[in-house]
This record gives sequence, structure tokens and C-alpha cells, in this order.
Amino acid sequence: MLIKGVSLIQGGITVKGRDILIEGKRIEKIGRDLPCSRSDEILDGRGMLAVPGLINSHTHLAMTLFRGYADDMALMPWLTEKIWPLEAKLTSEDIRWGVKLGCLELIRFGITCYNDMYYYMDETARTTKEMGLRAFLSGVVFDSKPQFKAEAESFIKAWKDDDLIHPAVGPHAIYTCSAETLRWAADLAEKNNVVLHTHLSETEGEVQASMKDHGLSPVDYLDSLGLLSPRLVAAHCVHLSDKDISLLASRGVNVAHCPISNLKLAAGIAPVEKLLSAGVNVCLGTDGASTNNNLDLYEEMKVASVVQKNACSKSDALKASMAWKMATESGYKALGLDLGLREGALADLALINLRRPWFTPEASLISHLVYSMPGEVDTTIINGKVLMKGGVIAGEDEILVKAQERFEKLTA
Amino acid sequence: MLIKGVSLIQGGITVKGRDILIEGKRIEKIGRDLPCSRSDEILDGRGMLAVPGLINSHTHLAMTLFRGYADDMALMPWLTEKIWPLEAKLTSEDIRWGVKLGCLELIRFGITCYNDMYYYMDETARTTKEMGLRAFLSGVVFDSKPQFKAEAESFIKAWKDDDLIHPAVGPHAIYTCSAETLRWAADLAEKNNVVLHTHLSETEGEVQASMKDHGLSPVDYLDSLGLLSPRLVAAHCVHLSDKDISLLASRGVNVAHCPISNLKLAAGIAPVEKLLSAGVNVCLGTDGASTNNNLDLYEEMKVASVVQKNACSKSDALKASMAWKMATESGYKALGLDLGLREGALADLALINLRRPWFTPEASLISHLVYSMPGEVDTTIINGKVLMKGGVIAGEDEILVKAQERFEKLTA
Repeated sequence: MLIKGVSLIQGGITVKGRDILIEGKRIEKIGRDLPCSRSDEILDGRGMLAVPGLINSHTHLAMTLFRGYADDMALMPWLTEKIWPLEAKLTSEDIRWGVKLGCLELIRFGITCYNDMYYYMDETARTTKEMGLRAFLSGVVFDSKPQFKAEAESFIKAWKDDDLIHPAVGPHAIYTCSAETLRWAADLAEKNNVVLHTHLSETEGEVQASMKDHGLSPVDYLDSLGLLSPRLVAAHCVHLSDKDISLLASRGVNVAHCPISNLKLAAGIAPVEKLLSAGVNVCLGTDGASTNNNLDLYEEMKVASVVQKNACSKSDALKASMAWKMATESGYKALGLDLGLREGALADLALINLRRPWFTPEASLISHLVYSMPGEVDTTIINGKVLMKGGVIAGEDEILVKAQERFEKLTA
Repeated sequence: MLIKGVSLIQGGITVKGRDILIEGKRIEKIGRDLPCSRSDEILDGRGMLAVPGLINSHTHLAMTLFRGYADDMALMPWLTEKIWPLEAKLTSEDIRWGVKLGCLELIRFGITCYNDMYYYMDETARTTKEMGLRAFLSGVVFDSKPQFKAEAESFIKAWKDDDLIHPAVGPHAIYTCSAETLRWAADLAEKNNVVLHTHLSETEGEVQASMKDHGLSPVDYLDSLGLLSPRLVAAHCVHLSDKDISLLASRGVNVAHCPISNLKLAAGIAPVEKLLSAGVNVCLGTDGASTNNNLDLYEEMKVASVVQKNACSKSDALKASMAWKMATESGYKALGLDLGLREGALADLALINLRRPWFTPEASLISHLVYSMPGEVDTTIINGKVLMKGGVIAGEDEILVKAQERFEKLTA
């Protein structure tokens, strides 16, 4: 595939009129006037900006099926009265259409890989692969469902050599998993050399309970069990002491910052500037569409930045370039992905239409990507395959209809 | 014009398959299977949601030309080193293309009316009318440019009977206008029965200076000069005492809440829940694209809601329905506009494509409008005239090119 005449951002500078040659799954060459063989599919990139794929580093994709089902509620009534009763009725067919719906949305926002924790991971893996996206998938593990541990082990075996699907281990949180379960999860991830994914220090209540039960902050507690390492992606990390921040930094933990979900559930604002100053790798996630209520990392970048500026009383905090890095490079680092808009990298990228008012004047495109553009991209390519072109995704209408049917059946 | 088979939200409920008949500037009829005359233009509304026009209740539209020119800076260096030197060079030709660029963006976000304060109001008025939008325009007034007072008076005379353009009076703020100027502005607005538009209590520094200079909060000070009334639209109102809030409520003042600009400049979070509880009419604005950096009220609704929930530690604060009201009905009330999706109202509306993942499942469309959809609409109609259809605006490319040229000339 050859993308002709596209704009790129290289070292913060916009360069125009470049060609991108994709051979198989990888970017073969980036340059001017590249020759194309007769068999190459040609994409006209004029008036477009090519950007590397974004990474949604914390989500629960099948929950896209619950979007808007119950908003503006406190966390516990939302869970006990609305979400848990629905989840108790979920079948793998619901998961299938929920994941497809979520994949449509990720494609539309130019997100080429997501880091997920939920139920029915085999179905999620099959469906994601069918849709053509890249994913890190953890079947959620907690003590009240002991069978989830065995399922997590067999899921890793089944998928560990897949091209797009990366199995991972997902102990839910310190308040739903025993010390034994948490240690088991760390060992399993270590033994199989896969990502470990958990929720951490999301609410003040979680910190208080941990201090009461263990005499340790949630971060200290996880460290005492050996979970803090560069293979951990810890979602949220809202309530942290300075000591917690140092510990996360020294252990090389990756933090998945989810500002919109945290704000919407009134959970607080993560100390991102402090985490970054300490050298922590902070990436960006939307959390599930049931608490966000979308999967748009463009919106998430902007909210992360402006909310952090205000929280720090510093209008130069969390600059656009850092927000962009959190959604791209920091995600690649957290998950060990060979991505980026460079020769040799896996071909996950999006083309964005620059002929829109929010890109004018063309002063700083990174600023416009983060602060100005609504999230929709024009074209999304994953693993060298075009999944959306000119805003059209094959089969989208059927997915919307089927997802609606599943939702109506679940809530009938 | 007849819009066929569209969905509508009536009393919070979605109804489908309705027709909207527009005669001249007004909505003539809404119903099922309306007959059309041979001369009616037909718009296919199937798969679309019709919503009434949104009101951007505080902006500086020509500043869209400065989008992304200088981000991530503290307020004073941003003004003194970047914005003021640029503004000193502005010509009416720059205003023309800056306003056109802003109008493109408003149209794309389904915003049919904006409340503006800036320079060169005659050019702004002519250009806005040419673009077909509705606007309330105040030439900014402050003491260092005494000639602006005379210009404000002649601007009102010139435009007061216009169909789309509503002249207004815009004293900049208490820290740039003397007591005499503020009283003059209130009198001028009263005498001409027009809107009064100012910045109020935007920063902590403004409050401290007012206490020092006048022994009064900015709100008390404006009240002492007779400016607080239902004709006032007061932008920002971030730093308010409980007494200030009561006073704004008892005087019937309209507040234009601009949460993204406030966060991005680290100015604070307005006490919107308290204002609403006190009965204040709170509408929604983006501020200029130079501090936001776009004019997207969909994004503004979501940020207003989630940020307020967190600030109040209440996940049921500022619900989606209230955010939607702030962007619509509260704006109509503040500006005295006869708008809304109902028979007899002026025909300002947008059609939104529901065949998108962020509208699935179709649980609550108000929730999806506020929390899920990226801001772009499909079709925008103002004063009975179609300004965008299927995402296409006539003449857009020329405006983007000309705005870019003006920006390059200004910053050369």
C-alpha cells in the first residue's frame, strides 16, 4: 500500500508531501515521490495528516453496550442497581456485539490498540481479531469467582502467539482480590512474560480501606506482594502520596490515566504532573464507555491537559506535546509495542482531514490535535490493513442494529 | 422546506418519523406525514436527530485566527508577548477572515447564534450576516481607547433593526473600565433595550484587586453601579462568594459559564451547582478559540458536567439534561431569542447522524449528545436557510486558505 502526498509531524515540525509505503504489516519506507509497484493499493493523502495509532490503555470494551444506560448516579447505586444486574445476564453473544460496537468507535477515533479487562475474553479476542484491531486482553480475576483463574491461564495458552491479540493478566483490584490472588497474578504474568493490568488507588475510600486493612497504602500493599514492575499497567492512580509516586517511579510501573471517568464518577484528579516529574510512564485511557461515555482519546487528551493545568494552578502544565505522547509513545512503551510513524514499525496509523476549520491557522498541529479537533479521523489502518477509509467502515450498520437488539434484550 | 422522517426529543423522550415544515424563517409545523407543496425543498431526515440551535454565549470570534498561536503559557505573558502585539496589527480584513473561519466552525458544531465581544464590530456584523449566522455583537469598550464608546453608539444605531445581528454593549471588565464607563454602558444598553455583556470574576486576582480598590467584590461593585440586571450576560463568574451568588440570582443576571477556557488558563472552576440552586440562569460559552482552542459546545457541555461533578464530589451533579439546557434554552432566555424545536419558533436547528457508534445503544439521546458524541453535526439550518448539508459548506476551502494567508501575514 502506498499513501501519497501526506503531511507528517517529524520532531514537532509539520512536513508536507510525503509518501508512506506499507509492505505487509510494516511501514517499509517514508519519503518523497516513492515509486509504487503495479500491485500497490494507492491512498491519496493530499490534505491529510498521517498520525501513528493511539493506544487506549485502560478500557472495558464490551461495556460499550451499556453506554448511557445509567448516568449521573453515585458509584455504588450505579453498580448495584444498574450494572451488576445487567452483567449477571450477559452472554457471549452480548459480548460479541458490545466488542464490535466498541471496535467501530476505536476505529473512528484512530485508536489502533486497546488494553482491556472484562469477562468472556475468548469471545472478545475472536471478535477483536475479526474486526482487525490490536488488543491486550485480561480476563478479570477476583476472589468471588475462583474459576476465573483457570480461565485466565488457558486464555494465555490459547492466544499467546497471536499476531494481534496479546493475552494479559487482570487482577481486578486490591479490594476484590486476596493477597494470594494478587501474588498468583504477578507470578502468572511473570511466568508467561505478559502484561499485568489492575485498578489502583481509584477512590479515597480504597486508600482508607487499605490503610485500615493492611496498614499500607494500596501502592505500598501491591509492592509488598511483588506486583509493582514495568509489566504492570495500573489504571487510575488518583489518590497517591508522594511516597507512592516515588515507589511507582522506582519500580517502573506504567500508569493509565483516565481523567474523564474519574471526573464523571467524582473520584478526583490524578497528580499527573507529579507522576511525570518523578519519571513515571503515564499513558491515557478512557475507561469503559459506561462511565465516560465514549472511547475518544482526542477528548481525553484535552481534558487531561486542561484539568491538570487548573489542578496545578499552572497554565503551562501538561502541555499539548505531553498529552500527545501519553496517547501514543507512552502507550507503546507500557505495552512493549513496536509502533510509531517510522520505517520498520508496525503499520498502525490514521489519516486526518486537515481541510477543516479546527486545523486553521496551521500554527502547531500538535496543539490542534490535542486542543481543537473533534475526535473523528478519516482513515484508519491497523497491521497494514485499511479498516476505515473516508469515514466508511464495512459492516457498520449491521453492528449498530445488532448491538441495539442485544441491549434491548438485556434491559427488557 | 420540509424535513422528512426525522427523530426528535420531546419532553426527554425520543420520537421518530416526524416531519418539520419550515416556511420562511420559522418552523411552521411539526408532525407526521406532512404534505409538501411542489416548491418545497425536501431534506431526508431518516436516521437523523433534529436538535434546536445551540447558543455560544461568550466568545471572541475573530480570535479564531489566533488558534494555537500560543498555548501552554501563563495568562499575562500570553497576552503581553503574544496576543496584544498581534491585535495591535489587526486590520478589518483580518477580522473578516477570522470571523468567517469562526462561523465555519460554529456551523459545523450546530451553533446557530453567538454572543461576541471584540474589535471591528461593523466588519464582524457584515461578515456574520454574509455567512448567515445569528449574533449578539458588542464592540469592546475600555478606558484606554475612549473612541470605542462613540463607535459602540453608532454600531447600535446602524444594526438595531437587523434580522440576524443584534447589537449589544460590551464594557470589557471592572479592571479595564472606570466606574463612569461602566455606568455609561449600563445606561446605553438600557436606553436602547439591548444586551449588556462583560467579563466578571474570572480570576482570583480580579477579586483581590476589587476588594483592595473598591472594598467590594466585583459582583458587589457592578451592583453598586447599577449593572446587574436581566439584560446582563456575565462571562466566567468563577470566583464568587455565597453573597455574590444570591445577588446574581436576585438581580436576574445571566452567567456565561466557560469551563474549558477557565481550566486551560488555570483560572478555577465556577460554582455552577450553587448558581443553579440559587436560580441563576447559567448558559454556556467557549470563550475565544485562542484560549479553548475550539468553539465546540458539545465538548463544553461534557466538560462542564464532569468537572462540576468532581468539584462537588457528587456524581449526580450537573446532569446531562441540565448541560443540554445550558447550551440551548438558557441561552435563548439570556438573549431573549424565540428559538427551540417547536411550531412558531425561528428555524435554527441542526440534523445529527444517529448511525454512528456513539448513539448506540439508543438509551438516552440527551446523554449521548452531552457525553458521547464528538461535536460535528450533519446539517445546519439558520433562519430557515441551509448553511451546511451532509457536512458540506459552500465556500469553505476558500475561507481556510484566506484565513491561513491572513495569519501568516500577521505573524510574519
